[in-house]
Amino acid sequence: MSQERNESVPHMKSEEFRQLGHQMVDWIADYWARMESYPVRAKVAPGEVLSKLPPHAPEQGLGGVEGWDAVFKDLESVVMPGVTHWQSPSFFAYFPANASGPSVLGELLSAGLGVQGMLWSTGPSCTELETRVLDWLAELIGLPESFRSMSPAGGGVIQGTASEATLVAMVAARSRVRRQRPGDAPLVAYSSTQAHSSVLKAAMLSGVARGASDTAHVRLLETDGGYALRPELLERAITEDLAAGRQPFFVCATLGTTSSGAMDPLGPTSEVMKRTGLTDMGGWLHVDAAWAGSALICPENQGLAAGIENVDSIAFDPHKWMLTNFDCDAFYTRDRAALVEALSVTPEYLRNAASASGSVIDYRDWQVELGRRFRALKLWFVVRHYGVNGLRAYIREHVRLAALFESWVREDTRFELAVPRSLSLVCFRLAPRPGEAPEATDARNRALLDKLNATGSAFLSHTVLPGVGGKPARFVLRMAIGAPSTQETHVRACWEALQKLTGE
Amino acid sequence: MSQERNESVPHMKSEEFRQLGHQMVDWIADYWARMESYPVRAKVAPGEVLSKLPPHAPEQGLGGVEGWDAVFKDLESVVMPGVTHWQSPSFFAYFPANASGPSVLGELLSAGLGVQGMLWSTGPSCTELETRVLDWLAELIGLPESFRSMSPAGGGVIQGTASEATLVAMVAARSRVRRQRPGDAPLVAYSSTQAHSSVLKAAMLSGVARGASDTAHVRLLETDGGYALRPELLERAITEDLAAGRQPFFVCATLGTTSSGAMDPLGPTSEVMKRTGLTDMGGWLHVDAAWAGSALICPENQGLAAGIENVDSIAFDPHKWMLTNFDCDAFYTRDRAALVEALSVTPEYLRNAASASGSVIDYRDWQVELGRRFRALKLWFVVRHYGVNGLRAYIREHVRLAALFESWVREDTRFELAVPRSLSLVCFRLAPRPGEAPEATDARNRALLDKLNATGSAFLSHTVLPGVGGKPARFVLRMAIGAPSTQETHVRACWEALQKLTGE
Repeated sequence: MSQERNESVPHMKSEEFRQLGHQMVDWIADYWARMESYPVRAKVAPGEVLSKLPPHAPEQGLGGVEGWDAVFKDLESVVMPGVTHWQSPSFFAYFPANASGPSVLGELLSAGLGVQGMLWSTGPSCTELETRVLDWLAELIGLPESFRSMSPAGGGVIQGTASEATLVAMVAARSRVRRQRPGDAPLVAYSSTQAHSSVLKAAMLSGVARGASDTAHVRLLETDGGYALRPELLERAITEDLAAGRQPFFVCATLGTTSSGAMDPLGPTSEVMKRTGLTDMGGWLHVDAAWAGSALICPENQGLAAGIENVDSIAFDPHKWMLTNFDCDAFYTRDRAALVEALSVTPEYLRNAASASGSVIDYRDWQVELGRRFRALKLWFVVRHYGVNGLRAYIREHVRLAALFESWVREDTRFELAVPRSLSLVCFRLAPRPGEAPEATDARNRALLDKLNATGSAFLSHTVLPGVGGKPARFVLRMAIGAPSTQETHVRACWEALQKLTGE
Repeated sequence: MSQERNESVPHMKSEEFRQLGHQMVDWIADYWARMESYPVRAKVAPGEVLSKLPPHAPEQGLGGVEGWDAVFKDLESVVMPGVTHWQSPSFFAYFPANASGPSVLGELLSAGLGVQGMLWSTGPSCTELETRVLDWLAELIGLPESFRSMSPAGGGVIQGTASEATLVAMVAARSRVRRQRPGDAPLVAYSSTQAHSSVLKAAMLSGVARGASDTAHVRLLETDGGYALRPELLERAITEDLAAGRQPFFVCATLGTTSSGAMDPLGPTSEVMKRTGLTDMGGWLHVDAAWAGSALICPENQGLAAGIENVDSIAFDPHKWMLTNFDCDAFYTRDRAALVEALSVTPEYLRNAASASGSVIDYRDWQVELGRRFRALKLWFVVRHYGVNGLRAYIREHVRLAALFESWVREDTRFELAVPRSLSLVCFRLAPRPGEAPEATDARNRALLDKLNATGSAFLSHTVLPGVGGKPARFVLRMAIGAPSTQETHVRACWEALQKLTGE
């Protein structure tokens, strides 16, 4: 950047950047190699990291490459003890948050280019590479052409997270329904109780819900025994709300719920929306496939999305299970005009000839933020490096490992599956002992989880699955396989640790 | 990551990552060195980049380091022609979007660690480093202790963008006002006509406004001759809305408007809110200092924020003018409880002992998204590398260059300042000729801007400043100085190009 010329501002010199950049790349490679030497979940106490950081910003800078020795030292002594290792091969908690070599290179390049692609004109490559790579992915996961940019009305965009995707879909839905059904009827959104918390959060942000307990405007419907949405309950709720003068406008179906990986039936859900007249009112069906969506790149999994041609939008996170660093959510809609109508504000200072021509996409109108970085690079790198075959092999290997884990659970009578395995997620628990109170079973499971996580050898998280059909709710452990480096040996070690702790 | 073991998934090997990582670091250093060889604004036509990208994803991956030659080749031939060079020393458009060596290293490290810090427990260092570095910055820009995490009620958090910060502030405001004043009175937000478009967009997202032209719920008030908010108009509007049964709840003041860098008076604005009773109702004053906030690290500029102790929140973007890569917005509030109340949803699968103890911050409850990457690293690196003195020197150099440019405009009678310089932003134009119609003056200015940008030697953007006091609106050019590599020579070259094009 020709930064050398002004001596009063201590910009990093080109040679220094090269040297420190190489050092940082090597540090990362070393970290990946030694990752298993760390406890998976950080063992620090609250405030411990904070207490090691000086209370005031330094007056003087580092003064060159030598000064950076102190930074690398603090990285080891201050930062690393407080890192929970999401990339560890024994990280099985929540859902994965994938990083990979190609993706890190893409993030690095994006930072180095420093492009801000709010408008086509401020980043033509930022925009058009995103358009193309998202069309690639749309084809891979089996989306009809109506969701791709080649279609007159559809297209894909990278959102930061699935939460943003849900929010954007919800406000587009509101805009479309209000246009078709003007008035002040209270709006109602629908999902199952198992939908992600971001549905309720989107309703709170958008003002549809007044607070986290507003069940009048966000109906969280009971599920079937497999924790999937029950279309007949959705139909009843929509019908009742319409009869009461309320305005249904948004349904969120989930492919792969966070708690148990349940798959809501898309076809029957959209049928309900048609039958109740909601589709004709402009009602919107969004599919949150944040985690499971990546599995749709394998043809054998695409049946899970049967009926996808009738939904209005779908989002999934390559940053979860497709080797692309956070943040990268792929969002598709068949009605991009609704997005733009709900989100576009064009002040004079953003007007330009290309936008005025109508021949370009300005992705700022498809998202919450105005600014956007060049996130398509990392996705492009990942797809090119692995190729479709490599990406499919990656998904299949995790599914294979989860099936193996599931078989071990089935074979050990001390344990039970909470629900059948969903792709690479296994929900299981210590089985109830004869006559044991449900609370006691839960307590034993909680203790097992705490003991395992305290060892640092693996990290699992939990959920509570609601009781269905009069049964009690259950505390269950979630084995979510999906870190890039996870091998059979890590899954087996985790299972053996669980068995050993159970035997104690 | 021990990725070598599974041969069926073509993970990048450790040695390959090192080699390609070094290559990418060097590519970036080379790019920075040769940046001036590119036209600042990309010269591609719509669809040009897209047409060079294959229509389908590759079935086979790259097969190793050699395969990456094709990627680096495409980077040059496909991507680079479509890049608008935000880091160019002759990029003077919009506001800057800074990158720097230390910041790129931080982004790289964040990607390599792959931490997802949604909860304290999923990233203690991610959380606590952010807390500490934001407290550093709060002190630097002169915020009272009530905005820092050390206080019982306040604190800072990194948002992605100022747009998100405004949205979060607005929904927190709504939540607080609705709690204190339950009911269904229509909510009204206020800013000047010169506030950023994200205020209106936040109102659309939050449902406060019904569309981009809903002036009943978002009042965009006329400004004074310097394009700053007029407190007496705010007072009149609030009073009228209250009398009509509406519920004022949110005021956005701007430090450094996008069009002309105007500074709204914070003290008188908060006085109006007190006097009208709005403060007692829970009404919220947010300060959008997205661009100008970085200048507050220099004590000589802190007078611009006089009255800051009475605002509820303030946000500024280190990614604009403080050498930190996009995305990094520093958001502070004195009432973090209002944020959490408006944004917190806690499903079972996110519950954990640390959160339950109440002794940690879970930043997911301070933002739109659930997930979050380790963005504090880049900010930490920047502050440590430059030191407070270096950062101040950086700001001061840009202000000096803008003052120089301003002096040149003043000396050339063909030109005029549209408004006095604001920090490093100079709004100017070709002066009207005697008897020239306003439209003709505008057309000459538009033509000058188009000609300059078409040369590729510099990139400026424009705005239209509204007429105040019966005068006509004016098309003006914006000279926004703030790229890390900009030197006096670039500013001078831009001015000489403008003069030459004017002479033609």
